[in-house]
Amino acid sequence: MDHLREIQTDGISNPREISRLAIDIGGSLIKLVYFSKDSSDHEDPLNDSVGVSNGVNGRLHFAKFETININDCLKFISANKLLLGGFQHQENPTNDRSFIKATGGGAYKFSDLFKEKLGISLEKEDEMDCLVTGANFLLKAVNHEAFTYLNGQKEFVQIDHNDLYPYLLVNIGSGVGMVKVDGDGKFERVSGTSVGGGTFWGLGKLLTKCQSFDELLELSHRGNNRVVDMLVGDIYGGMDYSKIGLSSTAIASSFGRAISNNNELDDYKPEDVSRSLLRMISNNIGQISYLNALRFGLKRIFFGGFFIRGQSYTMDTISVAVHFWSKGEAKAMFLRHEGFLGALGAFMSYERHSLDDLMINQSVQIPVDASCGTDTNYNPLERDLNETESMQCRVYQA
Amino acid sequence: MDHLREIQTDGISNPREISRLAIDIGGSLIKLVYFSKDSSDHEDPLNDSVGVSNGVNGRLHFAKFETININDCLKFISANKLLLGGFQHQENPTNDRSFIKATGGGAYKFSDLFKEKLGISLEKEDEMDCLVTGANFLLKAVNHEAFTYLNGQKEFVQIDHNDLYPYLLVNIGSGVGMVKVDGDGKFERVSGTSVGGGTFWGLGKLLTKCQSFDELLELSHRGNNRVVDMLVGDIYGGMDYSKIGLSSTAIASSFGRAISNNNELDDYKPEDVSRSLLRMISNNIGQISYLNALRFGLKRIFFGGFFIRGQSYTMDTISVAVHFWSKGEAKAMFLRHEGFLGALGAFMSYERHSLDDLMINQSVQIPVDASCGTDTNYNPLERDLNETESMQCRVYQA
Repeated sequence: MDHLREIQTDGISNPREISRLAIDIGGSLIKLVYFSKDSSDHEDPLNDSVGVSNGVNGRLHFAKFETININDCLKFISANKLLLGGFQHQENPTNDRSFIKATGGGAYKFSDLFKEKLGISLEKEDEMDCLVTGANFLLKAVNHEAFTYLNGQKEFVQIDHNDLYPYLLVNIGSGVGMVKVDGDGKFERVSGTSVGGGTFWGLGKLLTKCQSFDELLELSHRGNNRVVDMLVGDIYGGMDYSKIGLSSTAIASSFGRAISNNNELDDYKPEDVSRSLLRMISNNIGQISYLNALRFGLKRIFFGGFFIRGQSYTMDTISVAVHFWSKGEAKAMFLRHEGFLGALGAFMSYERHSLDDLMINQSVQIPVDASCGTDTNYNPLERDLNETESMQCRVYQA
Repeated sequence: MDHLREIQTDGISNPREISRLAIDIGGSLIKLVYFSKDSSDHEDPLNDSVGVSNGVNGRLHFAKFETININDCLKFISANKLLLGGFQHQENPTNDRSFIKATGGGAYKFSDLFKEKLGISLEKEDEMDCLVTGANFLLKAVNHEAFTYLNGQKEFVQIDHNDLYPYLLVNIGSGVGMVKVDGDGKFERVSGTSVGGGTFWGLGKLLTKCQSFDELLELSHRGNNRVVDMLVGDIYGGMDYSKIGLSSTAIASSFGRAISNNNELDDYKPEDVSRSLLRMISNNIGQISYLNALRFGLKRIFFGGFFIRGQSYTMDTISVAVHFWSKGEAKAMFLRHEGFLGALGAFMSYERHSLDDLMINQSVQIPVDASCGTDTNYNPLERDLNETESMQCRVYQA
């Protein structure tokens, strides 16, 4: 319901202005990306630098739902008439009204449900394909998209389009996929781990009784992992194991301290448990990512997926893990629209496979200084980077 | 107390027969290795193939205690008079009565306690050094020590002494250390993870209220991880994600299924939780081990430490992980005395650094067909491989 309110007050309550919806249905979350035309926009025949006409000004919108609440998502799509799609006027229905582009495992699992409830087909796009397309798009087209985070310092990264590839894309959803990206549409899934966002949320739910992922994350801010984790100093009597470079404060064994006393779960603060869990999983992902980057000599690792959510502790842990294991050789980078890579990729697949009336390579041109919604004072460094938001953009028809 | 009974009925209640004790004090467990002379043995001047005389027949004994119960360990040492050490007669006290070789972080942490309670110093030996020495000794001197385990099939591995190095040694204690071994005393710690035995036991204790590690392991035998884990098929509606080689039964997200319903911890069977946890941790260790083996082109990975305990499910998971990720290129192998590598290494360090009266390179010669205790029908393939046991051997004085 929050989502409904949010979107209805976002200036797009007029269904005529909505077009083009794509959806990414993961194990835990459903992500939507859709375009709304500015109501003031006339399809002017402006010739811009890309040399195409019929550009349409508008916004890309992002929204998410928990997969277990898929009915809320269906209601949202229906209430906001997101299926009226296409850039044509309503009087000229096109094919894309009868289907929407969809990716993620749920595109298979919930195919019948969409047909039954909304009368539309889900046209399935490969998950990895969409992830990579979405990541490449964001990295190339959106300014202030990628940033590093180390020791509490965020820093936006200028992406050199000629020196982007190869890179490792680590998508942290319920599980974690690791993809070596060599170019547009050129990629290989090289690894992954089942210890991901679903593990944090699933284990965290069992351990803390939290009712939402966000609540669990919030808890972790106030926690102290040293209550639960066994540190090198706990084993060495406060000393470092300096010979092999382990300081006394390094974690020797995640949750290892829970062994050494008679405490039960209720004796621990949920915030300490949550923090230890977050650190264990973030560190593990950082380490496995680095080891895979090393295999292929990749210096840059971009982390996407809905696990991170701009959490400083998570990003710091991942960055430190990559920095520690690579001895500073590899760099962890994060994406402001991390959670929507797959959905963006599905969105961009419309014209690639079915719609001739759009540019082949790039349907969406984001202004260099991507603005977010109507917030003109937007400062990407200070905002929560992962809130549902919209992005000013221009869509072209060839 | 079990330990006391066990050892006292093991034919070594006569303190004169005990000599040489070494100890490895980890974050969770204390491991002891000590030698007892056969009471019938006379120090005959037999010249054997190695060309040394003064061999003493006897047994190597192995025992373990939880580190939180260190006082039981001290009582055990005291009650069994394990500090009378040396191969000389009691009437000729030697220096080694005033200290024992010790390794592991606890050798630092509990140094004062040993001095206070038993009046002895712990002579500290480097942990990695001891691990490697212990592993090399077992791999070279003990027949039927290393074995593979895949698809329920155990198979002992014949070690070619000339083709043993290099290998990756993965020691799974509370945390996990990974060491590249290039020869006797030639090694480098290349990686590790904090997600180890302490994580299994610590998290498991919080989640299941089990009172011991063994109880938790026992539980896991009867569990079904699919109740708790999110499988690829759960996301894809029962389908494989065949394009990237993930079958519908592959785990997409460990503990991920706990997200998708309103169950609380008490609604899950402890055995299912335990199994999921064991699989998550074993798989993760297998994966990180493989990635490190790959870095250095190592085809063989030996797993030691007290986490595995001969558990078929654990070994199978680790083996499958190594097999899966390496596409069959690398092999996981296990050690029958997996938990005692460090303690054995400390035991063998006596002569290396301090006692001139023993052979430099090899103080213990295990008969080719290493027998265990008095069990003449011993079949290493059928026994629990990790029970505390003793090993017939012969110790030489130069």
